[in-house]
Amino acid sequence: MKAVVSKNDLVTGMSRVAGALPQRPSAMQILQNIHLAFDGDAKALRATATDLEVAAIAEIPATISEAGKITVPGKKFLESLRQLPEDEVTLIVTDRHALTLKCGKARLTIRGSNAEEYPALPIKSDAKGTLSFEIPDGISFEVAASEWKEVIRQGIIAASHDEARTYLSGANLVVKGTDGELVTTDGHRLAVCGYTVSGTADDAAVNVVVPLRVLSDISSNISGEGVVRVEVGDTQIAFTTEAGAYYSRLIAEKFPDYNKIIPKSSNHRVEANRQTLLDAVRRVRPFASARTRTVMFSIKQDSVIVSAESPEVGEGRDEVEASVHGNDLDISFNGEYLLDGLRVMTGDEIIFETGAKLDPAVITTANDKHFRYILMPQRQ
Amino acid sequence: MKAVVSKNDLVTGMSRVAGALPQRPSAMQILQNIHLAFDGDAKALRATATDLEVAAIAEIPATISEAGKITVPGKKFLESLRQLPEDEVTLIVTDRHALTLKCGKARLTIRGSNAEEYPALPIKSDAKGTLSFEIPDGISFEVAASEWKEVIRQGIIAASHDEARTYLSGANLVVKGTDGELVTTDGHRLAVCGYTVSGTADDAAVNVVVPLRVLSDISSNISGEGVVRVEVGDTQIAFTTEAGAYYSRLIAEKFPDYNKIIPKSSNHRVEANRQTLLDAVRRVRPFASARTRTVMFSIKQDSVIVSAESPEVGEGRDEVEASVHGNDLDISFNGEYLLDGLRVMTGDEIIFETGAKLDPAVITTANDKHFRYILMPQRQ
Repeated sequence: MKAVVSKNDLVTGMSRVAGALPQRPSAMQILQNIHLAFDGDAKALRATATDLEVAAIAEIPATISEAGKITVPGKKFLESLRQLPEDEVTLIVTDRHALTLKCGKARLTIRGSNAEEYPALPIKSDAKGTLSFEIPDGISFEVAASEWKEVIRQGIIAASHDEARTYLSGANLVVKGTDGELVTTDGHRLAVCGYTVSGTADDAAVNVVVPLRVLSDISSNISGEGVVRVEVGDTQIAFTTEAGAYYSRLIAEKFPDYNKIIPKSSNHRVEANRQTLLDAVRRVRPFASARTRTVMFSIKQDSVIVSAESPEVGEGRDEVEASVHGNDLDISFNGEYLLDGLRVMTGDEIIFETGAKLDPAVITTANDKHFRYILMPQRQ
Repeated sequence: MKAVVSKNDLVTGMSRVAGALPQRPSAMQILQNIHLAFDGDAKALRATATDLEVAAIAEIPATISEAGKITVPGKKFLESLRQLPEDEVTLIVTDRHALTLKCGKARLTIRGSNAEEYPALPIKSDAKGTLSFEIPDGISFEVAASEWKEVIRQGIIAASHDEARTYLSGANLVVKGTDGELVTTDGHRLAVCGYTVSGTADDAAVNVVVPLRVLSDISSNISGEGVVRVEVGDTQIAFTTEAGAYYSRLIAEKFPDYNKIIPKSSNHRVEANRQTLLDAVRRVRPFASARTRTVMFSIKQDSVIVSAESPEVGEGRDEVEASVHGNDLDISFNGEYLLDGLRVMTGDEIIFETGAKLDPAVITTANDKHFRYILMPQRQ
């Protein structure tokens, strides 16, 4: 069992699947390993990792002179790989329990374990040789990879890290015809990220909750070229990308009906420069109470006064020019949540709309209609 | 009490003294504050911080229209300062308990406390207006700032973090005539950094133990221009630099006699490329035992084989070309200590010398005679 690969391809391929390794010690010791298959026909090494909740597979271009397979400890293997010179690496499986790498004068032998004991994963290969995870009776669609990457970057900010509420630690993936939305919330704010779907039947409808982990993993691995193919089943989801294939179980619980939360009209509308507003929030933020993190917007005729104060620290205020429709209004938010939203938005101008002091506010930007950030105000 | 300063000067000045703020909650609450003096004559704001063990003072160029002083919470103040636009900042002390900053449309009021309650520090000003800490009957000398910065960068690696052995958590500062040495050790390795001293009497002799904290603080603040003036007393040390003045109490305990440890002759001498050797150690390091971190050098006729192994991970080895004098030898070290030394050395070629398998090894570089790294081997 022998193959020759480039060091960079090997590091890239192994990194693409490493996110699916168990994040905690697993009862099945072999899951800590990455499965490597030397398949003579495929002209590529296949690297696979899974913790049985999520899974990932990536191909590594290789010249394979002898087929075979092995599993090797994922993190240790990557750590030593990264130190190799950028050069050709020869991989040799001498027996079922060790993989030897030769690169320049370096010779690394890493103890692995028998690939026969690794769980079988439902992987298929299409006519072009593209690998993907098989989802029985799945509904499938495609999204431009660049759009998908951006949707995840923006959506991830509002997701909950509360492990007790698993349905909030996922993202609601909704598709109706050619319109897709990815929605996250932690109960205090909501991020709604729209995207365009293709390659699906007109009457296709999807409404599932996807663990964040597989989404952020895909986002950090894809370059933004090409498309992401999504296949959704009853309990599972699979993603096929130019950077490997990804699989996850779905979260069974129901996501809150977010359309009920989004206000349909507003009494106050503020347009302001995004960067200026972001700077103002950053400037007053050290003065906010460490507990509530309250930052106040005082909406005036042609400006917003951004302020924060706490008895221990003092008071910070800044003024941002704005185009305002509606009466004066004081409205308070968690400053960290404001920052999160203003940071991930694109475009120069933000539009801030709300009905009243205690109504949810909607923040959007003129040039990015696909992202809406809905924020609950704080009671003062 | 009013002054106008540039935002960048203010951030720089405050950062220079922030290292002297208490690292843990202090019984004297006011020490968490930075003392700011608006002295009309000095044409500069003076910022001071101390935890009574170390102290620092820096000047901030300012147009002062009204003299006065105040103390403000150091970390909160810096945090909000950093967010201001790069512009003029007007500082106003309205009463004894609050400092207001105006910058553009931002207005920050930070609660401070009465400067009268701040401890008095022994600060003097020379004819040119340079500030320094006064050391009664001190021996003084000067070192080029660039040399001093390098000495600290290299010396810091071998110091102990064992708080139970305070004498090892400091650096031994030794001066004889124009030769200076800064020495650190943690009992397993020793770094000896030489430098040239000027501006002192020929028979001057210094041998004291300086807390690392003040040294690393100076190193991170000085740019490497000009000179560092050092003044050493019986129990205190002061440093005057272009980036402010620094003060520290000395460590009273005696430093080990390091000259006894440094071997005077060797049976084995290896010359090798530093980067190649460093890469080899990095490559085999993931294979070392997590407990002992053992990396072995097998010195051959014209190469060194660098290797590490552990039953759990496997075995890594690499070979580095070398010019060798002496017989073959296997000698083992803590790989992390090897890395520390090889990383901070300058120059392309290292010289490795040792007497025997269990004798201390001395690592130097041909073009940096001022740095010697002495490493105890591990028993195998």
